[in-house]
Amino acid sequence: MLLLIPGPVTTRPEVRQALSQDLAPWDNDTRALLERLRARILRLAGGGPDTHAVLPLQGCGHFVTEAALRTFLPQGGRILVPASGAYADRMIRLAREAGRVPVPLPIDGAADPAAIARALHADPTLSHVGMVYSETGTGIIHDVLAVGAVVRSAGRRMIIDAVSAFGALPLDLSAMPEVDAAVFTANKCLEALPGIAFAVARTDRLLTSLGNAGSWSFDLADIYAHALRAGWGSFRFTPPIQTLAALDIALNYLDAETQVARLARYTANMRTLYDGVRDIGLTPLLPAVLQGPVIVNVHAPIDPGWNLQAFVDALKTRGFLISNFHNTPSPSFRVGCIGAITPADMACAVSAMHDSLRALGIKQRQGAQQ
Amino acid sequence: MLLLIPGPVTTRPEVRQALSQDLAPWDNDTRALLERLRARILRLAGGGPDTHAVLPLQGCGHFVTEAALRTFLPQGGRILVPASGAYADRMIRLAREAGRVPVPLPIDGAADPAAIARALHADPTLSHVGMVYSETGTGIIHDVLAVGAVVRSAGRRMIIDAVSAFGALPLDLSAMPEVDAAVFTANKCLEALPGIAFAVARTDRLLTSLGNAGSWSFDLADIYAHALRAGWGSFRFTPPIQTLAALDIALNYLDAETQVARLARYTANMRTLYDGVRDIGLTPLLPAVLQGPVIVNVHAPIDPGWNLQAFVDALKTRGFLISNFHNTPSPSFRVGCIGAITPADMACAVSAMHDSLRALGIKQRQGAQQ
Repeated sequence: MLLLIPGPVTTRPEVRQALSQDLAPWDNDTRALLERLRARILRLAGGGPDTHAVLPLQGCGHFVTEAALRTFLPQGGRILVPASGAYADRMIRLAREAGRVPVPLPIDGAADPAAIARALHADPTLSHVGMVYSETGTGIIHDVLAVGAVVRSAGRRMIIDAVSAFGALPLDLSAMPEVDAAVFTANKCLEALPGIAFAVARTDRLLTSLGNAGSWSFDLADIYAHALRAGWGSFRFTPPIQTLAALDIALNYLDAETQVARLARYTANMRTLYDGVRDIGLTPLLPAVLQGPVIVNVHAPIDPGWNLQAFVDALKTRGFLISNFHNTPSPSFRVGCIGAITPADMACAVSAMHDSLRALGIKQRQGAQQ
Repeated sequence: MLLLIPGPVTTRPEVRQALSQDLAPWDNDTRALLERLRARILRLAGGGPDTHAVLPLQGCGHFVTEAALRTFLPQGGRILVPASGAYADRMIRLAREAGRVPVPLPIDGAADPAAIARALHADPTLSHVGMVYSETGTGIIHDVLAVGAVVRSAGRRMIIDAVSAFGALPLDLSAMPEVDAAVFTANKCLEALPGIAFAVARTDRLLTSLGNAGSWSFDLADIYAHALRAGWGSFRFTPPIQTLAALDIALNYLDAETQVARLARYTANMRTLYDGVRDIGLTPLLPAVLQGPVIVNVHAPIDPGWNLQAFVDALKTRGFLISNFHNTPSPSFRVGCIGAITPADMACAVSAMHDSLRALGIKQRQGAQQ
């Protein structure tokens, strides 16, 4: 069974196998593992050993996004959030419930740096921009480098939700001094397992942000202070240590493949899928020019017999698991292109979709909105 | 290598093996797993299907403790915390940083229900008592039933940190209507892996506590609302799903052993260890009458050659891993008695301690404080 969901992704058996061991989080061998992981992730993020810190946080993408918002914005702080889709909405809700003030900026297609510059110019109380790099809600990759440039020239700060981007899409924080933190999890393009999240954050900003968070658990500045005090191999609280051991193996595979080749593979996965679903009469949500390599959302067929769960079940019997929900405004299904999968797998998945639609008697396959 | 730390504990290979699979959190098979887990945990907690809800939370014991404090105390709410040791200190710091007001009550030995009753009587602004059931910082088990009775008769509410108790020590929430929530993790007496925490909470209180948390991530009332809306098999955010699969296997072993027999095994583990370390000249921190079955803290020997890390390393070469830090006020080492281990393992561990002390030339083994 291959998982074609945008995380947790299909992993290699060698990665999964690393989970099956008892480990003590504060043992010296385990400390060496965590220290090594932090250094490896720092390199992937383009962070410098003095300018940036890798801050692991137990849990999921929501948690580390909330932690970044709490740490770098004070209570009542205002953040502009380009409303790219479901994951921008997530950042907005996380900020609002934490007592920060998210200001959504409507966007159509890819985020427009000029529009962001205008919004920042018009409202000097906005200290931050919160940008989703890979918006799973649509499949669009936003140009965080161009957005960062306008944030920098406006003298503001930036938080990047890189959850479904990090490890495949380029990120060089050394060239983006305006970024307080980029946040992500292990179970997306890093091809490891869920349970652990990371922020890569600027050390200068961490030092001046102590006391902002209003939450010991979600205080990235305290995670940094702990590392300075107790060492980079030390965790504040019990971590999902097996997941970290698996991530270490997963990073070996990323090193061997290279990040450039991984992005090329995902792009080829996406292209095989995108062209394939069109060939069998389905309608992708996005035009090809906007389609990113991480996830393809496909309009639900207009056929009155369409039933998402029935389609998911039919695909599952054929060896492919996709999400049984959609997070687009109109009905759709979504297929992840990331994980330990290849274009050949995607071609088989398209074939399985074709068979499943036939078996379910879905004849009118085009989407309602084209 | 056996882990003799108070969590993550030594697990059975069958439990660890269940981690090594790719799973989709929202797949119908996975939903069935989560639904089943919730029902199993509800039974263990003595909760009723209408009166109590099992609320899973990604992460560690700190996170779910903070979530319970945020959910059931409003901003500025005041909670009496019997200062039992390091884990009461944890609750105090979590509450304070979340903008609640923890009021520590000094205690000596086991928490005294009469003293708690007096403190509640003296300060009517205290809405809650936060009690650590098994205080890892000392090894003492506190009588949450007796404490609960005085909380109930004072008309106040209670939050129980049951992290290193749940699954072995008795808990019957149906008899404790004063308890808003008991919180715990999978990697202690449940003998599963770290990465997932739970609160078992009263449904009536969850319904009236929406909006308290000031954090979407840590809002137990929202986790409950989500379950009511999306089903008991549904997660709000990506869970460490492999850890949940392993917990399901671990609960099979708990069912087979029974909770009573597990507590008896841990007690026998503790007794073997406690008597054993005394036999080799070491001094346990607690008198036998106060010593609980979860963890034994042992005074550091007064011998000037004592070095905790050297002792830990020596034990490790002999197959036993203990913590390389202490969280008692005076130097000590700590040995967990929980997990998939037996009194025979503990006898071997004592023997390994004896050998290690000899190898390290530690002659004066008694503790400084007796």
